[in-house]
Amino acid sequence: MAAFTDKKERITALMHGKDRPGIVARVSGWIYARGGNILHADQHHDNENGIFFQRVEWVPAGGVAEEVELFKKLAEGELEMELKISVSSAKPKLAIMVSKFEHCFIDLIMRVRMGELDCDISCVISNHEKLRALSETFGLKFYCVSVSAENKAAAEARQIEILRECGADLIVMARYMQILSPEFLRNCGAPVINIHHSFLPAFAGAKPYHQAYRRGVKIIGATAHYATADLDEGPIIAQDVTTISHRNTVDDLIRKGRELERTVLASAVRWHLQNRILAYKNKTVVFD
Amino acid sequence: MAAFTDKKERITALMHGKDRPGIVARVSGWIYARGGNILHADQHHDNENGIFFQRVEWVPAGGVAEEVELFKKLAEGELEMELKISVSSAKPKLAIMVSKFEHCFIDLIMRVRMGELDCDISCVISNHEKLRALSETFGLKFYCVSVSAENKAAAEARQIEILRECGADLIVMARYMQILSPEFLRNCGAPVINIHHSFLPAFAGAKPYHQAYRRGVKIIGATAHYATADLDEGPIIAQDVTTISHRNTVDDLIRKGRELERTVLASAVRWHLQNRILAYKNKTVVFD
Amino acid sequence: MAAFTDKKERITALMHGKDRPGIVARVSGWIYARGGNILHADQHHDNENGIFFQRVEWVPAGGVAEEVELFKKLAEGELEMELKISVSSAKPKLAIMVSKFEHCFIDLIMRVRMGELDCDISCVISNHEKLRALSETFGLKFYCVSVSAENKAAAEARQIEILRECGADLIVMARYMQILSPEFLRNCGAPVINIHHSFLPAFAGAKPYHQAYRRGVKIIGATAHYATADLDEGPIIAQDVTTISHRNTVDDLIRKGRELERTVLASAVRWHLQNRILAYKNKTVVFD
Amino acid sequence: MAAFTDKKERITALMHGKDRPGIVARVSGWIYARGGNILHADQHHDNENGIFFQRVEWVPAGGVAEEVELFKKLAEGELEMELKISVSSAKPKLAIMVSKFEHCFIDLIMRVRMGELDCDISCVISNHEKLRALSETFGLKFYCVSVSAENKAAAEARQIEILRECGADLIVMARYMQILSPEFLRNCGAPVINIHHSFLPAFAGAKPYHQAYRRGVKIIGATAHYATADLDEGPIIAQDVTTISHRNTVDDLIRKGRELERTVLASAVRWHLQNRILAYKNKTVVFD
Repeated sequence: MAAFTDKKERITALMHGKDRPGIVARVSGWIYARGGNILHADQHHDNENGIFFQRVEWVPAGGVAEEVELFKKLAEGELEMELKISVSSAKPKLAIMVSKFEHCFIDLIMRVRMGELDCDISCVISNHEKLRALSETFGLKFYCVSVSAENKAAAEARQIEILRECGADLIVMARYMQILSPEFLRNCGAPVINIHHSFLPAFAGAKPYHQAYRRGVKIIGATAHYATADLDEGPIIAQDVTTISHRNTVDDLIRKGRELERTVLASAVRWHLQNRILAYKNKTVVFD
Repeated sequence: MAAFTDKKERITALMHGKDRPGIVARVSGWIYARGGNILHADQHHDNENGIFFQRVEWVPAGGVAEEVELFKKLAEGELEMELKISVSSAKPKLAIMVSKFEHCFIDLIMRVRMGELDCDISCVISNHEKLRALSETFGLKFYCVSVSAENKAAAEARQIEILRECGADLIVMARYMQILSPEFLRNCGAPVINIHHSFLPAFAGAKPYHQAYRRGVKIIGATAHYATADLDEGPIIAQDVTTISHRNTVDDLIRKGRELERTVLASAVRWHLQNRILAYKNKTVVFD
Repeated sequence: MAAFTDKKERITALMHGKDRPGIVARVSGWIYARGGNILHADQHHDNENGIFFQRVEWVPAGGVAEEVELFKKLAEGELEMELKISVSSAKPKLAIMVSKFEHCFIDLIMRVRMGELDCDISCVISNHEKLRALSETFGLKFYCVSVSAENKAAAEARQIEILRECGADLIVMARYMQILSPEFLRNCGAPVINIHHSFLPAFAGAKPYHQAYRRGVKIIGATAHYATADLDEGPIIAQDVTTISHRNTVDDLIRKGRELERTVLASAVRWHLQNRILAYKNKTVVFD
Repeated sequence: MAAFTDKKERITALMHGKDRPGIVARVSGWIYARGGNILHADQHHDNENGIFFQRVEWVPAGGVAEEVELFKKLAEGELEMELKISVSSAKPKLAIMVSKFEHCFIDLIMRVRMGELDCDISCVISNHEKLRALSETFGLKFYCVSVSAENKAAAEARQIEILRECGADLIVMARYMQILSPEFLRNCGAPVINIHHSFLPAFAGAKPYHQAYRRGVKIIGATAHYATADLDEGPIIAQDVTTISHRNTVDDLIRKGRELERTVLASAVRWHLQNRILAYKNKTVVFD
């Protein structure tokens, strides 16, 4: 362990499949036998459904490409697991979709600048011009694609074209105020993370802070989830809440909520970029 | 202020009504002119609905009974407010309804013992015998009233009889697993506080921890609210939450939830006993 | 109340002094008699020390300047209170001192942009050039004043000169990594808010996250306080914490701490700008 | 996994020692080769100090006693680890030391009753008679041992005698207001968990709520730690905090603190009973 430095290339494998005895022993034994050094290993058993989950991060003794190929055979072949595998030198590309609210957007940019999110922002796609100047100030490619009820299919086709051109390993809806169609989600080529400004499943749909105010709750929240065809129903990745009182107006809720939206979305994105999330059966396992 | 000791009798007035200028000046001026010493005063304006709320606690210079009578004239007559007024020497009576889960029940007993809840427990009503021994250990009157689909009306009539006999200024459902009928709520003669084991409005209804587990949320909660004819829809008094992860089973959720249920229910009961809560339009103002 | 619009000029008075009966009645009666409309009023009694505190915010019926003059006579003269009074049309000036860490700095800029902090940033003073480009991108005046053990007095004199030139109603140390001398604090002409990256009084001094890591605490925090001649001992305005575990490295603590530092500092600055804070006897009353 | 029922005896091993590659593979391979079924496995690397930590819980295929013996050889012999090993059928004995405050004491009793803490309470030792009746109500053996400056050594000798007689795998100071001598801690025969009513290291020593009130902090806490010869300096197991404001008196702090003390102490005791805690270098690893 002592000899490990951050410079060495690391492999991260995320896998899940039918649970059975001996998987942990087989995986750790395999890596050890090939001279690899396991940095982190975490596993989870869903006893109800008989599913096994594992995340393992290691430094191989030899070539990374060969190790990845052989590990695929082990995991997908012998162990019959679904596998996501990544290497630390491949920096993922992040595409941001945003409308007019800038708090989550700027927050993501800053975290990339500070090295907190290890990725490149490949493009910004918005349905408004408002954030062009700010995007360009930070050297980001900005594309405005107007969306209306009439042009929705064409607009989404154009968005997918941009995503293909710029590259996107992950798409983040940083308060993008349009609903993505099932077709878009099928064809966009990357998972999509959305931030919903309520503690889901409470207050799904539009204007959740207004809903919360009317119901008189004492706590509000924010939820980051993978976008699926079922609006606000995708697998939840991260949630956080804050207290409110009768003194707080809807504007206060919106202000307080912005804090939550920023940190909850950033956590979800970071975990995804670090290959810590496994989604299954509309839930997530987060190896944090 | 310096001369005030806790032994002097205090009056607490809670009022609300149509907002208009000068109410605070009138109330504080009235108390001051009569030689009273204001200990706490808090007010709130609901600007949306034009409603004014105030809680004021003071030590009168002269007799308490006369002060209360005259203040009623001021508040209800001149200022046209709805008023709840209480004096510190009158210890309120608490009736507890409980089924088999004992955590909230014991918690309430302990807080009364330790002086944290300033009230007397006048009776315990349960639909099971399970907690009789424990109740009697602590010197509490315990009544078992079985409830079934068939005898519900008769059972509730018997419960109301008990409540009348023993006296109840506040009824607390400390995980009482029966739904109280609208008739009961109309006739029981006291407000009813319930603890629901979820972060309402998420997961209303039965088995909320199971619902939360299935939905894969990352945070669970508990909600204390006044019971109304609309199940789980009454004015929310207090809420709290705790984080969970994919590692937590339903049993873990139940265990973690017990902490929340105890503290959230206790806060709601304490605030009610201290005349800190005004319910209106299905919301609450809590002067905490 | 209904007729009130945000456009009307508001006066906010913050005062404290010897407690005695009748102050609330006198203040509210005075405002009401002159036709003023009280929007918010909050008071606090420190019974231990016999001190009364009040914050009152109102829309006067007539001219603001005259109302302010007359209110000063009431509060400082008749009631013998210390008074801070402000009018909503006078936008305060914020001077930011910063070194190399940018998270709090950018956070403050963004909140001013979004209208969350109602002030103008009059200047940025740093002991490094690193944040010049970013400052100028956002149109801010940036001054680099190098500080060393040798030139400290001269550097502080130059900083004070800049503050005088640009104007500063509040100075914020947004992770400014130099200790301000008592002379600076006496002469800088405005209160100074600092963010300390620990839960004070635990881990005062340098490298608090390293201290926390070594001690093995399970929770870390951040503290915003007014800077005084006693380092890390000034009146605490706001604190927040987050949980950590044995899995977290010092780098994780630093990352998690950044979230706290941003929100805690922003809350303290917002409360100060809204005239919500009264400091006395090394503590604060925050009317939030 | 599917075939596992809670009735089967489980073995839990906690170990730590010099880190080196292959330990995880060796341990999991060993258990698997003998037909065991791993229920949970968690490990941690302290990269700074080169220490490896592991907790593994499994159901052996054959006899428990033999498996334990053989595993000791593996862990202590071959792998040179320090090992704590326990079997699920052996219910640990809990001894409670308490003075006059009953909130933590009753809380522990209730959690044992509800099955939340899987142990037997072997005895209650107090330096006051106050909690005898309550203890005996719950069928607990109660021993009063008065402690004064003069008789301290003799009193501690008597306490150790009681602990030996009744049996104690864990001793809990549930607000026991005497300092245990280094001799007691050496000779009492079991680890000791203490609850300190502050967020350590802030406000060590006596009357922490008064200290916190004087310093004007905005958050208070509680800390459960192993008792060592250095007062309030032992390895921290669990901490929690709650917010306070200028409105809160010392009495409010004490009341709010009671909530924290109960839950923090209970968590620490539960984790210890479940063999989840490894203490080293004045810190803890908690596999929760």
